[in-house]
Amino acid sequence: MTEQMAAEGTGIDRIGSRAKVAALQLARATTSAKNKALLSAADDIEAAASDLIEANQADLAQAEAEGISGALLDRLRLTSQRVSGMAAGLRQVAGLADPIGEVTEGFTRPNGLRMTRVRAPLGVVAVIYEARPNVTADAAALCLKSGNAALLRGSSYALRSNLAIATVIRAAITQAGLPADSVQVVEDTSRAGAKALMQAKKWVDLLVPRGGPNLIAAIEADATVPFVIDGAGNCHVYIDATANLEMAADIVVNSKTHRPGVCNAAEKLLVHRSVASEFLPSVSKLLLDAGVELRGDDASRQLVESMSPASDSDWPTEYLDLIMAVRVVDSIDEALAHIRRYGSGHTEAIVTEDLTAADRFVDETESAVVTVNASTRFTDGEEFGFGAEIGISTQKLHVRGPMGLRALTSERWVVRGQGQVR
Amino acid sequence: MTEQMAAEGTGIDRIGSRAKVAALQLARATTSAKNKALLSAADDIEAAASDLIEANQADLAQAEAEGISGALLDRLRLTSQRVSGMAAGLRQVAGLADPIGEVTEGFTRPNGLRMTRVRAPLGVVAVIYEARPNVTADAAALCLKSGNAALLRGSSYALRSNLAIATVIRAAITQAGLPADSVQVVEDTSRAGAKALMQAKKWVDLLVPRGGPNLIAAIEADATVPFVIDGAGNCHVYIDATANLEMAADIVVNSKTHRPGVCNAAEKLLVHRSVASEFLPSVSKLLLDAGVELRGDDASRQLVESMSPASDSDWPTEYLDLIMAVRVVDSIDEALAHIRRYGSGHTEAIVTEDLTAADRFVDETESAVVTVNASTRFTDGEEFGFGAEIGISTQKLHVRGPMGLRALTSERWVVRGQGQVR
Repeated sequence: MTEQMAAEGTGIDRIGSRAKVAALQLARATTSAKNKALLSAADDIEAAASDLIEANQADLAQAEAEGISGALLDRLRLTSQRVSGMAAGLRQVAGLADPIGEVTEGFTRPNGLRMTRVRAPLGVVAVIYEARPNVTADAAALCLKSGNAALLRGSSYALRSNLAIATVIRAAITQAGLPADSVQVVEDTSRAGAKALMQAKKWVDLLVPRGGPNLIAAIEADATVPFVIDGAGNCHVYIDATANLEMAADIVVNSKTHRPGVCNAAEKLLVHRSVASEFLPSVSKLLLDAGVELRGDDASRQLVESMSPASDSDWPTEYLDLIMAVRVVDSIDEALAHIRRYGSGHTEAIVTEDLTAADRFVDETESAVVTVNASTRFTDGEEFGFGAEIGISTQKLHVRGPMGLRALTSERWVVRGQGQVR
Repeated sequence: MTEQMAAEGTGIDRIGSRAKVAALQLARATTSAKNKALLSAADDIEAAASDLIEANQADLAQAEAEGISGALLDRLRLTSQRVSGMAAGLRQVAGLADPIGEVTEGFTRPNGLRMTRVRAPLGVVAVIYEARPNVTADAAALCLKSGNAALLRGSSYALRSNLAIATVIRAAITQAGLPADSVQVVEDTSRAGAKALMQAKKWVDLLVPRGGPNLIAAIEADATVPFVIDGAGNCHVYIDATANLEMAADIVVNSKTHRPGVCNAAEKLLVHRSVASEFLPSVSKLLLDAGVELRGDDASRQLVESMSPASDSDWPTEYLDLIMAVRVVDSIDEALAHIRRYGSGHTEAIVTEDLTAADRFVDETESAVVTVNASTRFTDGEEFGFGAEIGISTQKLHVRGPMGLRALTSERWVVRGQGQVR
C-alpha cells in the first residue's frame, strides 16, 4: 500500500498503479461479469447519447477554432448513428468467446508432471489513438473482455468525448462488480504525456498504437514498453502466367478500390509478361473507371497509354489512395524479388492456376498474410472470424496479421506434480 | 545485388546483409538437409577437437594475461569432454522435430476461404553471450534447425574459440548444400559493436541474450531490435497450511540446492504460520547441512536461531547462490501479496494438499510458470520436453517460460481462395 501511495506522485504513476490494482481483480473476473459490464455499457451509451454528443460538440467547436477541418473533423464527430455503432461494438465483444483460461496445450511428462499452457491476460494494456472517439469504446471493450486494464490515450481534440464515453463505461463496469479503473482515459494528452506512457515499463504490459505513420514512428523511436506495431501495408497482387484473368481482374479491382485508404488495400500490381498484353489493357480500363491513377513501368506503359511513368519512389510507397503502380515481370522469381525488396510484410496476393507457383509464392514471400486467388482485403479481423480487431500486426514476434482478443493475452505454464524433484 | 553490395560498407551491414540472403535460402531448406548439416557438424567438431582446443588455449592465455580467473576462466575452457558435449548437443538438435511448416491452426470461412496458420522462421536471429564457447555450437544448432540465419556475438575472450567452432560448422553446412552464412560469428566484440547489433533493425528479426544482469540491462537500455529477455528468477516456494511437510522439505531443498546458480533456483521460502513451528526447524537443518545461509524474518528467527536477520533488500534479490530468505505468513493471501510485490515473474511453487489453495495460487500469481507440488527447477526446456533450450523468457509477449525451437519461429497466415473478393 505504501508503494502504491508513493506512486500517486506523478500522472502516469498514479493511473498506472490504479490500472495495476484493477488488472489484478479483472484477471480473475468471470466471463459473465465481464459480459454484464459490456452489455450494460452498450445500453448506457445509447441512453447517454445526447450527453455524449454534447461533449463531442464542445470538442468539435474547439477543434474547428484551432483550424481542424475535413476528414479529421469528420472522424472526430459523434452522431447518434455513431453512438449506436459504439453500442453495437460493445455488444459484439460481449458475444465473443472469452480467451482467458483457454488451455492451449497440455501433456504429461515421463516423471508424471502434468503441464498445461493456459491463456492469461497481459495485465495493463495502453492504447494510443487519434481523434476518433469510437476507439475509446472499442478499445475499452477488447481490453475488458480479455481481462486487461486499459489506459486509453486519445487525441487532445477528443478528450471531452473520450472522458464522457469512459465515464459511462466505468459506471457499467462498477455495476457489474468489477473495478472502475479497469478503464481509464489518460488526461495528459501532451507529447510528453504520450512519451511517459510509452516508457512506463513499471505499469504497461503492452502498448497498441492505432494511428498513422507518425504515431508508429514515434513509438518505434521512443517506446520502451512492449508494443505491437500495426504498420504500413505496401501490398502486392501478382498475376501469374496461368491466372484466370477474369478472376485476376476481380481481385485486382477489389484489392485496390474496395477501401483504398486502409492498410490491406493493394498498392502494386505485378503482371507476368506472358499475360500482360491480354490482361493489362482490360484491367486498366476497370481501374481507371473506378478512378484509380495508374503509374507504370516502361513495359506497362507500352500496353496502356494512359499510365504515367512510375518512379523509383513509387515501389516502396503505401499510397492509401486511389493510386496503383504497375510492373511487368518476366517470371515469378522477378515478382518474388520485387516483393522482397519493396514489400512491407503485410499482405501479398497471387492469382494463379498453377500449384507450383502458388506454393512458391506462399513459401517465398515473408509477409504476415499471403493469399492465393483472393483479395488482399481479407487481411482483417472480422474476415478471419475474430469478431473484432485491435489492428493488424506487421511484426514477427507475439502475433502476426489480424489481431483479435487473443493478441491481448499471453500463455503461461501450470505444472502440477505429486512432489517431484530433480 | 546492388543493394547488397552497397551494404558491404560497415561491419554490421556486411554481415547483416549476408545473413539476410542466407536466411532466405535456409527458410526453404528441407529438414533432411538441416539435419545432415547438424550431424556432419557434430562429427567434424569431434574430429577437430585438437584444433578447437588449440584455439581455445590461445584465448585462455590471453584471458589469463588480462587477469581473468576463477569461474569465468573455467567457463571459457574447452576440454575434450566439452567438445564431445557440443557434438552431442548438435546431434540432439538434429533429433528434434522441425518446427517449420507446422500448421498450428486452420479453418474454412463461410465464404469458402481456407485459412491456415503456418509456423515459419523469423529470419535472422542474433545471440549475444558471454565467454562460453559451447554456446556458439548450441545457438548455431538451434537457429539452423529453426531455419534462421544466426549472428553469434560472443565475448572477446572467446573469439578465437568461437571462430574455430563456427568454421567447422560452416563447412558442414556448406557440404549439406546450405549457405555457409547461415552461421556467422560477429568479430567486432567491442561494446560499440554489440550496440550496433542491438540496433540493426534492418537485419535482425530477434535478439536473444544469454548472459547475466549486466547484459540484460544493456539490452533493455539500448536494443531497438525485437528481443526476448531471459531475466532474473527471484523464485518463491510457498508452504501452505495443508502441505505434506515431507514433500515440502524435498521440494524446498531441491529448489534451493540442486543448482543454486541458475534462474529457476528458489531464492525465497514463505511458510504458513500454522505449520511454521513444525516445518521450519527441520527444513532449516536440511538446508544448513547443504551449506545454505538462511536469512529470516522475526517469526522465522524465533523458530530457528541460526538464521541471520533478513533485511528489506533481501526480498527482491536474486542471490544465484546458497542463500535463502525465509518469511512466515499468516495466510495464502499474504504469500500472494508478497510474491506480487517482490517476484520477478519467473517461477513460483506452492506445496499444498488443498485444491482451493492450489487453484488460487495458480490464478493469482502472474509468473511465467507456476508449479503445484513440484520443484521450481522444472522450469527448464529439457524438463518440459523441448529437447534444447535457448533460454527462459520472463517477458509476456511472444513466449513465456522455457524457450525451445518454437520460440525462434513466428506464425503467418496463408489464405487460399477461388477468386473471393469483398
